[in-house]
Amino acid sequence: MPAQSFDAIDIIRTKRSGGALSGNEIRWLVDAYTRGDVAEEQMSAWAMAVFFQGMNRSETRDLTLAMLNSGTRLSFDHLEVPTVDKHSTGGVGDKITLPLMPLVASFGVAVPQLAGRGLGHTGGTLDKLESFPGWRASLTNAEMFAQLRDVGGVICAAGEELAPADKKLYALRDATGTVEAIPLIASSIMSKKIAEGTRALVLDVKFGSGAFLPEIERGRELARTMVALGEDAGVRTTALLTDMSAPLGMTVGNANEVRESVEVLSGGGPEDVVDLTVTLAREMLALAGRADVDVAAALADGRAMDVWRRALRAQGADPDAALPTPNETTVIRAERDGVLSRLDAWSVGVAAWRLGAGRARRQDPIDHAAGIELHAKPGDRVRAGQPLMTLGADEDTRFGRAVEALEHAWTIEDESPCARPLVAERIVAY
Amino acid sequence: MPAQSFDAIDIIRTKRSGGALSGNEIRWLVDAYTRGDVAEEQMSAWAMAVFFQGMNRSETRDLTLAMLNSGTRLSFDHLEVPTVDKHSTGGVGDKITLPLMPLVASFGVAVPQLAGRGLGHTGGTLDKLESFPGWRASLTNAEMFAQLRDVGGVICAAGEELAPADKKLYALRDATGTVEAIPLIASSIMSKKIAEGTRALVLDVKFGSGAFLPEIERGRELARTMVALGEDAGVRTTALLTDMSAPLGMTVGNANEVRESVEVLSGGGPEDVVDLTVTLAREMLALAGRADVDVAAALADGRAMDVWRRALRAQGADPDAALPTPNETTVIRAERDGVLSRLDAWSVGVAAWRLGAGRARRQDPIDHAAGIELHAKPGDRVRAGQPLMTLGADEDTRFGRAVEALEHAWTIEDESPCARPLVAERIVAY
Repeated sequence: MPAQSFDAIDIIRTKRSGGALSGNEIRWLVDAYTRGDVAEEQMSAWAMAVFFQGMNRSETRDLTLAMLNSGTRLSFDHLEVPTVDKHSTGGVGDKITLPLMPLVASFGVAVPQLAGRGLGHTGGTLDKLESFPGWRASLTNAEMFAQLRDVGGVICAAGEELAPADKKLYALRDATGTVEAIPLIASSIMSKKIAEGTRALVLDVKFGSGAFLPEIERGRELARTMVALGEDAGVRTTALLTDMSAPLGMTVGNANEVRESVEVLSGGGPEDVVDLTVTLAREMLALAGRADVDVAAALADGRAMDVWRRALRAQGADPDAALPTPNETTVIRAERDGVLSRLDAWSVGVAAWRLGAGRARRQDPIDHAAGIELHAKPGDRVRAGQPLMTLGADEDTRFGRAVEALEHAWTIEDESPCARPLVAERIVAY
Repeated sequence: MPAQSFDAIDIIRTKRSGGALSGNEIRWLVDAYTRGDVAEEQMSAWAMAVFFQGMNRSETRDLTLAMLNSGTRLSFDHLEVPTVDKHSTGGVGDKITLPLMPLVASFGVAVPQLAGRGLGHTGGTLDKLESFPGWRASLTNAEMFAQLRDVGGVICAAGEELAPADKKLYALRDATGTVEAIPLIASSIMSKKIAEGTRALVLDVKFGSGAFLPEIERGRELARTMVALGEDAGVRTTALLTDMSAPLGMTVGNANEVRESVEVLSGGGPEDVVDLTVTLAREMLALAGRADVDVAAALADGRAMDVWRRALRAQGADPDAALPTPNETTVIRAERDGVLSRLDAWSVGVAAWRLGAGRARRQDPIDHAAGIELHAKPGDRVRAGQPLMTLGADEDTRFGRAVEALEHAWTIEDESPCARPLVAERIVAY
């Protein structure tokens, strides 16, 4: 804890007028906020000033380190295998972590995936896995280390002791309209990822309507900021900018996304999910010194599936358990013949949320069975009357507002649009 | 209370992105904040967004009316005399309210001066009057009406029931570095002034180093915004932009400023204080339909002094009481011969504050005896060794930091600079 003391109002005013804060000022601010000596209303005013004025590279690094140092930093060095993690900024139908962890772990690289829950229109990995009755998201550090050693990979909740300052600040930003400031997003993600002790990290930064920063320029800025933070902290970090203008895969929800992930682990599954899983696995394995391996083979021959099943059992779930399905369904159909040229990720995400698959507040429950199954993706030819998607929920009263969210969610045209690549850019340390 | 309900985060985000808020949104925000349904940290984030994005005329008016309607609106209509008030945005040595109220009231125009306390480097009218032992700042509405009827004027504390939303928001802005947003300043001042029920209002908007908005352009913007708000609410309003780059008068503090005010009421006093008092009195009397009267005469012949003495007695003070004087004094002298070309109001204000005349936090006590007596003003010829000012405090340990604040506070040059007019502009409804 720095001995020097500062005044919160001075710090807010410095940032408000576009000045840069010193490392001592930032460390004091984070420590004093975590202790409760800087009030919530002061921190939110500061966060809004950061939204408008930004932070330079050294300020962002100081903020990240201050939040990191507010808690414990784990280390997997005693495992004596390379560790690598992936973080996605969140999207609609983004279940990639589920097949990815076992795929990478099947090559003997430890994958400690400390994951989160969904909020708003984007889903959360822990919510999806909780579709399995009995699955435990919270592990002790001892359990997590044991699973990494015995199974090779683990997806679990980040412990309360990792970057507690970030937890407090994130909850505040969420409540005060100050989430979308790039230095705050970058330091929030990276403080947790550095704290969890991975030696390498691949970032999947989304752009497009379903991403929380839709403009590719802002996604690029976020990716560059995070890659720099990772490298500055000794974590080998690369980032992919990937397109989230349409949902990933054919399912949006929780249990249905798990089923789709199992298809991928069985050697099948939708092309975009398989492609992104394999691309991210190659990035992760390359950072872990295993650029040589045949990634796709581990999906085809069941090695990844084997890790998946062992990981589920280690966390109290039966991999063969029946997953919940919705009580009520309704089908939305194409209004004309043509090519589905657009299917808006944001609208589909909001519709799934309204069906019960997501939550508005952190403490809300979710319905694991609720969600959307897509029957066509952009580029697919459709006929009038053909099902475009099936909506599922616990009660049919939920369909009205979900259908409303989908009102302008797709376009059917005569001609097929040019396909855009899923991975737009790869960003490495500069 | 509007029946419609909104989401605080949506409102923050709308303002953050530069959008205009509807009247219903603003009314909901102010009501919900006053009730405690919108959290302090949400309101401070919103205030910071307003700092960066501003508010248009109708938003500012809606905010003012929402704060006004959070409490009681007084009316003096039953007094059957014109009412007029003055508000100053605050300065160093600004004791004008003290001679001004009795001067205007001596012409049979009712002056209900609901005043405040000082914070930081600027003094407060109530603090100055409390130099009189026994003087009561807080009156019931019945006492205030009675004094207006019997004496013709009153200076007292604004009751808790006037614009309570503004009180809550002002305290929040003060703690979160969001004071300096013009729409928030304007609506804060005007909600209270409209609530107090005056039919006419003259604004003394300061610019220069001792003002809290030093740039004249920002002072002009504030003045125009407030004049528009007053006129929109049916209060005849004009504003003067006055120079606060040097202290007003020869005294800065509390008891010493009262003594100087009594000099003015006795027909003497420093030229700048007399000039500004008379100028503001003429503005106020013109708005009250009394443009014809000989203002200066009422200072010379003791009519204003008579109102002053009766007002003090009505509030429990003896007009002939001995006012406190400081235990310790120290003199600062001119370092060379020449003309005092600059005497910085901000520095003098900070020095007086450090001597004990001001407070850092709302709940702090002040020392009524502490302060500064000036022996020269800008434009005055001085000789090396001649006293420039006398500092007074309860203990001589206070002099060190006060003298520090004055280190670069003045300039002595060979030639006399051009005198700048005290009143730079007059702003009326547009």
